[in-house]
Amino acid sequence: MQNSLYIYNSLTRKKEEFKPLNPPFAGLYVCGPTVYSDAHLGHARPFVVFDLLYRYLLHLGYRVRYVRNITDVGHLQDEEADAGEDKIINKARQEKLEPMEVVQKYMNTFHRNMEQLNTLPPSIEPRATGHIIEQQEFILKLIESGFAYESNGSVYFDVGKYSTRYNYGKLSGRVLEEMQAETRTLEGREDKKHPFDFALWKKAEPGHLMQWPSPWGNGFPGWHLECSAMSVKYLGEVFDIHGGGMDLMFPHHECEIAQSTAALGRETVRYWIHNNMITINGQKKARSLGNIITLDEIFSGRQKLL
Amino acid sequence: MQNSLYIYNSLTRKKEEFKPLNPPFAGLYVCGPTVYSDAHLGHARPFVVFDLLYRYLLHLGYRVRYVRNITDVGHLQDEEADAGEDKIINKARQEKLEPMEVVQKYMNTFHRNMEQLNTLPPSIEPRATGHIIEQQEFILKLIESGFAYESNGSVYFDVGKYSTRYNYGKLSGRVLEEMQAETRTLEGREDKKHPFDFALWKKAEPGHLMQWPSPWGNGFPGWHLECSAMSVKYLGEVFDIHGGGMDLMFPHHECEIAQSTAALGRETVRYWIHNNMITINGQKKARSLGNIITLDEIFSGRQKLL
Repeated sequence: MQNSLYIYNSLTRKKEEFKPLNPPFAGLYVCGPTVYSDAHLGHARPFVVFDLLYRYLLHLGYRVRYVRNITDVGHLQDEEADAGEDKIINKARQEKLEPMEVVQKYMNTFHRNMEQLNTLPPSIEPRATGHIIEQQEFILKLIESGFAYESNGSVYFDVGKYSTRYNYGKLSGRVLEEMQAETRTLEGREDKKHPFDFALWKKAEPGHLMQWPSPWGNGFPGWHLECSAMSVKYLGEVFDIHGGGMDLMFPHHECEIAQSTAALGRETVRYWIHNNMITINGQKKARSLGNIITLDEIFSGRQKLL
Repeated sequence: MQNSLYIYNSLTRKKEEFKPLNPPFAGLYVCGPTVYSDAHLGHARPFVVFDLLYRYLLHLGYRVRYVRNITDVGHLQDEEADAGEDKIINKARQEKLEPMEVVQKYMNTFHRNMEQLNTLPPSIEPRATGHIIEQQEFILKLIESGFAYESNGSVYFDVGKYSTRYNYGKLSGRVLEEMQAETRTLEGREDKKHPFDFALWKKAEPGHLMQWPSPWGNGFPGWHLECSAMSVKYLGEVFDIHGGGMDLMFPHHECEIAQSTAALGRETVRYWIHNNMITINGQKKARSLGNIITLDEIFSGRQKLL
């Protein structure tokens, strides 16, 4: 390995030389898509960015284990408030499909698009629904270590308690006191000790479409938990690189750091890398602004902006 | 739906007119591959056969839910004796990979080959490791109904007891008494009441590579269980068609029928369809005979037999 790799580490906010924990092995975890709609330009960017990193690590001679997850449960519509309907269940109702049919359909599209973009497939592509037990085990660890509590069939991460020992906000730069001041009042909040606590396990009402038995009754995992559980399962308690888009820094990655640190008593990720967002004509891309370009539209040329 | 479809039902051994349980919906479950090596000609046949059936059902106007599983744990090397090493773990040791890397690698190859064969993807492609809880729930039902017993951290299906009420062998035509007479003595047998009982859950030794916590201690599911648990989850307790290769009739499908009938108290599958095997120059295809042709060899032309 003659060439060095310098990484801008979002956590230390410094450019650092990459030195893997166990050379010649290198571990890379990247947050994958929530598969409830067609992949768009915003999905292309992180997976092309991290494909480049993956290829460069291979070029340097590392034996890389590249893990990129598929989120197929638990990602709610209002991410910051940890509330709203599950994005996949919402789509399943719209399309009159079983949630797993929605997942399969958009996962297939995603895979086809990633191949069209000439990206290499990851070494392991774990799915959240495929790791319910692992997530439950992770929650049990957090309850045991005192950083999670059960409340009315749900389990929450105790951000207040965590922040007495660790720095919640270290990655995103957010300050807990400022967040408290800005907190909105929202549904489901009554179960939580503090409004900024986030769900590790959510109680499911009887008709809820995706649910599993658990020590706390029937429910489903919180969105942030899968990445902590699956990265540790496949890369170990401490691993080299965690990547994702800037938009995932808060709350997703901040919560991941909190979960893993609280459960394992130490920092799990050695280098955090975030790609920036794509804007269109200076505007943020959003469904509500109508300027989303799907990858199928790019490859077919069928898009008015093109 | 002007045209009729006649199906040779392996269970009744008759050609029957296909009449779905809940038209215009039709449910189809097909046993998918165990992803531990390159897909070969023997894999192509069932998936082309059932792709044709799937397309024809769509053509007739049915709204078809086509479920085809991926076996990524629990398929042991000696299928009939329910013994030997897990095929994926065995490959993981050979290739010095994590079992889930083996699964991902050969699942990707399989998907690419299925696309090359111009087959349509199934509506849902559930994985055995993605349904550990569902399989454990199924075992709990079987224990409750008295047809399964725990023994030294493993759980077995009680074939003797089942055959006092139901006909074990009805699909394959095998006769339990004859099977008893032919039984070989093999490892692991000591936990079972009867040698032909089969594992629903296998105890894992501490170093075992794929294992999960369960009410019976750490272990992994038996091969036959996943199809019962996943078909019922996605198609309902009674569904229309179950397909697979003739080689799966015994023990796999016979055990599936026994599991589902014992847990649910009734017949689950309405039409069983089996495709015949491919032979090469009159010989059975087998790795040991060296006449396996992989699909990559077919599409590239790199095979001495071609």
